[in-house]
Amino acid sequence: MSENKIPYKIYLSEDEVPKAWYNLRADMKNKPAPLLNPGTLKPLTAEELTPIFCEELVKQELDENTAFIDIPQEIRDFYRMFRPSPLIRAYCLEEKLKTPAKIYYKFEGNNTSGSHKLNSAIAQAYYAKKQGLKGVTTETGAGQWGTALSMACSYFDLDCKVYMVKVSYEQKPFRREVMRTYGASVVPSPSDTTEVGRKILAEFPGTTGSLGCAISEAVEVATKSEGYRYVLGSVLNQVLLHQSVIGLEAKAAMDKYGVKPDIIIGCAGGGSNLGGLIAPFMGEKLRGEADYRIIAVEPASCPSFTRGTYAYDFCDTGMICPLAKMYTLGSSFIPSANHAGGLRFHGMSSTLSQLYDDGYMEATSVEQTSVFEAAEQFARVEGILPAPESSHAIRVAIDEAMKCKETGEEKTILFGLTGTGYFDLVAYEKFHNGEMSDYIPTDEEIAASIAKLPKV
Amino acid sequence: MSENKIPYKIYLSEDEVPKAWYNLRADMKNKPAPLLNPGTLKPLTAEELTPIFCEELVKQELDENTAFIDIPQEIRDFYRMFRPSPLIRAYCLEEKLKTPAKIYYKFEGNNTSGSHKLNSAIAQAYYAKKQGLKGVTTETGAGQWGTALSMACSYFDLDCKVYMVKVSYEQKPFRREVMRTYGASVVPSPSDTTEVGRKILAEFPGTTGSLGCAISEAVEVATKSEGYRYVLGSVLNQVLLHQSVIGLEAKAAMDKYGVKPDIIIGCAGGGSNLGGLIAPFMGEKLRGEADYRIIAVEPASCPSFTRGTYAYDFCDTGMICPLAKMYTLGSSFIPSANHAGGLRFHGMSSTLSQLYDDGYMEATSVEQTSVFEAAEQFARVEGILPAPESSHAIRVAIDEAMKCKETGEEKTILFGLTGTGYFDLVAYEKFHNGEMSDYIPTDEEIAASIAKLPKV
Repeated sequence: MSENKIPYKIYLSEDEVPKAWYNLRADMKNKPAPLLNPGTLKPLTAEELTPIFCEELVKQELDENTAFIDIPQEIRDFYRMFRPSPLIRAYCLEEKLKTPAKIYYKFEGNNTSGSHKLNSAIAQAYYAKKQGLKGVTTETGAGQWGTALSMACSYFDLDCKVYMVKVSYEQKPFRREVMRTYGASVVPSPSDTTEVGRKILAEFPGTTGSLGCAISEAVEVATKSEGYRYVLGSVLNQVLLHQSVIGLEAKAAMDKYGVKPDIIIGCAGGGSNLGGLIAPFMGEKLRGEADYRIIAVEPASCPSFTRGTYAYDFCDTGMICPLAKMYTLGSSFIPSANHAGGLRFHGMSSTLSQLYDDGYMEATSVEQTSVFEAAEQFARVEGILPAPESSHAIRVAIDEAMKCKETGEEKTILFGLTGTGYFDLVAYEKFHNGEMSDYIPTDEEIAASIAKLPKV
Repeated sequence: MSENKIPYKIYLSEDEVPKAWYNLRADMKNKPAPLLNPGTLKPLTAEELTPIFCEELVKQELDENTAFIDIPQEIRDFYRMFRPSPLIRAYCLEEKLKTPAKIYYKFEGNNTSGSHKLNSAIAQAYYAKKQGLKGVTTETGAGQWGTALSMACSYFDLDCKVYMVKVSYEQKPFRREVMRTYGASVVPSPSDTTEVGRKILAEFPGTTGSLGCAISEAVEVATKSEGYRYVLGSVLNQVLLHQSVIGLEAKAAMDKYGVKPDIIIGCAGGGSNLGGLIAPFMGEKLRGEADYRIIAVEPASCPSFTRGTYAYDFCDTGMICPLAKMYTLGSSFIPSANHAGGLRFHGMSSTLSQLYDDGYMEATSVEQTSVFEAAEQFARVEGILPAPESSHAIRVAIDEAMKCKETGEEKTILFGLTGTGYFDLVAYEKFHNGEMSDYIPTDEEIAASIAKLPKV
């Protein structure tokens, strides 16, 4: 099909929505390092994980060999509400930038949770329900994961307890209300409802919280409550597995028009969106079938890939979770109150960390005000008000497109537009009023928290 | 194609998006009554209208004979960002209600303005730009129209001044910030920036405003500022013309699958969504080619169709606008602070008023808490958090589906889901906390404002 025929928005038909998730680990020669029991320092077994996670999800977490895992019909039925999501050709942005680059973005924000998080939330809720549980606990940063999980739990009639990073709880009261609309209970973290929360509050009074703290609290509640399990919106292998629908759809849509991306860009907090977006492309790269330049974008205020170290660490600030080998700033690192709450995590998915360490992808970090500049530029021409998290990818996509303008190269760029910024207007307001600050942690700060890494 | 083959979401391809708007008036035997000059009581001429409205829009306003008006390429380019919008089969809602009815909704909320308003905003901004104007002024209720116009003006680099109904300005600070993101200036109405605003404030201190007041202020500023014109998001014929894309797409999508609605339901404030949604269906009805039951749904707190009178009235509270013949509660009627800000208008589109008077459609009114009950029920199963305005249509669609359950009839229901409720969480919060009240105006209140209608 000729280039001119490519529509602004490429929708797949319902029967083109993937029927199986793609498990990237199956194609990795160097598998991601296993989770360790922090007491014994030995790989965690399924038996040890089942008190925390749902059984079926433990299986998925530990399965590093099955390339495709069927998506249950109940989940596919729910996916129909918001999938297939559109792959959009950013003609207006290209024209505004006067770049010869061809820019595409996969937009995951066309659902009430406002982001890609719903892809995994519904899967996790489904397996919890199937196991006969009463409910689940979780943490949420920007509120996107919590909203998604609330929607999913409401659909399957499960109880849902959400620990929300305090800074987001305060900055995003409306997110909180959406969660309540779907029946969830929402607690600002750190809170005095858990032992670990009380400990963190005592050590760091006035902290605005972090994903790490909130995870500790949610895990504590799940393991101490009958009929509850903990679910996580990022970092874990199972989450990347579910999120592979993003990349599978994006690739199917591009294949349909004979388009092959040169550069694939995603924002990276814990890795859920990035891991999902790149999955099938990275698979081809791992199998030597194709080559792509893959770029992870993180906030300069929380730069785990670009300034962290590759080591075993706790996933949570409270140090009660299993140990994961990952690029990390140290679980005691508490990032500044950057508005992209969803990217304020000290570590990174083990799978992505291994791929990054093996040189299969690049990483870069960007500062907040330049991210909001890109967000506003994008909104004004493409119409969609992007989430601050997604705008990290927009920033780098624009930068790459401008490089093409200099060199005259007609590169094809694909980036993940993970969500909308409708609940981030407080941050936009600060940006407009010139009240937004860029905070970059010092080398000493990072060295201090890395020095506290567990000895493995 | 068999019934089972109907997907959850029917998307048209880009080349199926309408290339011309449909002008319903061309098929009406009884044309809507003309706008009158309030001084002479004679029909307004194009010359009299051009100081207020853009020239091309005046032509469209007065053209009651051309059935199809081409959509300029620049507008169609912009439409591509968010059109075609999906027609969704509400399988999940049907299952929840256990109704034999088949429910479809045309969802116009998948754009940053969050509603259908963008369909007309971009057209009006385009014609203003083409005329070489500096900018436009307008009013906004819930903020949807203002947001849409801000986006459109930003796209064409036009100045945009928005008078926002005070109750919405206060309840929806985030809407205000979105408008500012797109570069608009936003003033709460009634304000002390206009003569009419100062007059209304003196007469009704403490008023939370109404669309009528805000229109007066915006018109005053437009007519007194060089290079500015006034644009309106509803009521006018030109707006219904632009909004016909909703109905044209919906009908094209249904035709594609051989589906014919029995009942078509839309919320009605000034009539922009309803007029657009029903346009091609009503056209068939007027030409005797098909029959449909068409229902307008209005809030019980502002019941212009169901409790108003059909007469000439001012479109604005300040009585500086032209006179329009319409179903009205009287331009001095100030509705209670009902949360569906977009439906708080005392009158109704002249075109729809004529059709209603001629018996081509029905109208019903619903109370706020029952509307939010329907909204929450819908959100939990269909995933989308609806705008309060749209939820009026949901309420009646559910009621009609439940009647089908009683009778066993397999009716096909189509309703307009005009937008999302992401900026209406204050209202949702009140609903959850049991703090929402239903206000129904007394007969005396309505009689008092109707008694003040101009003598024509």
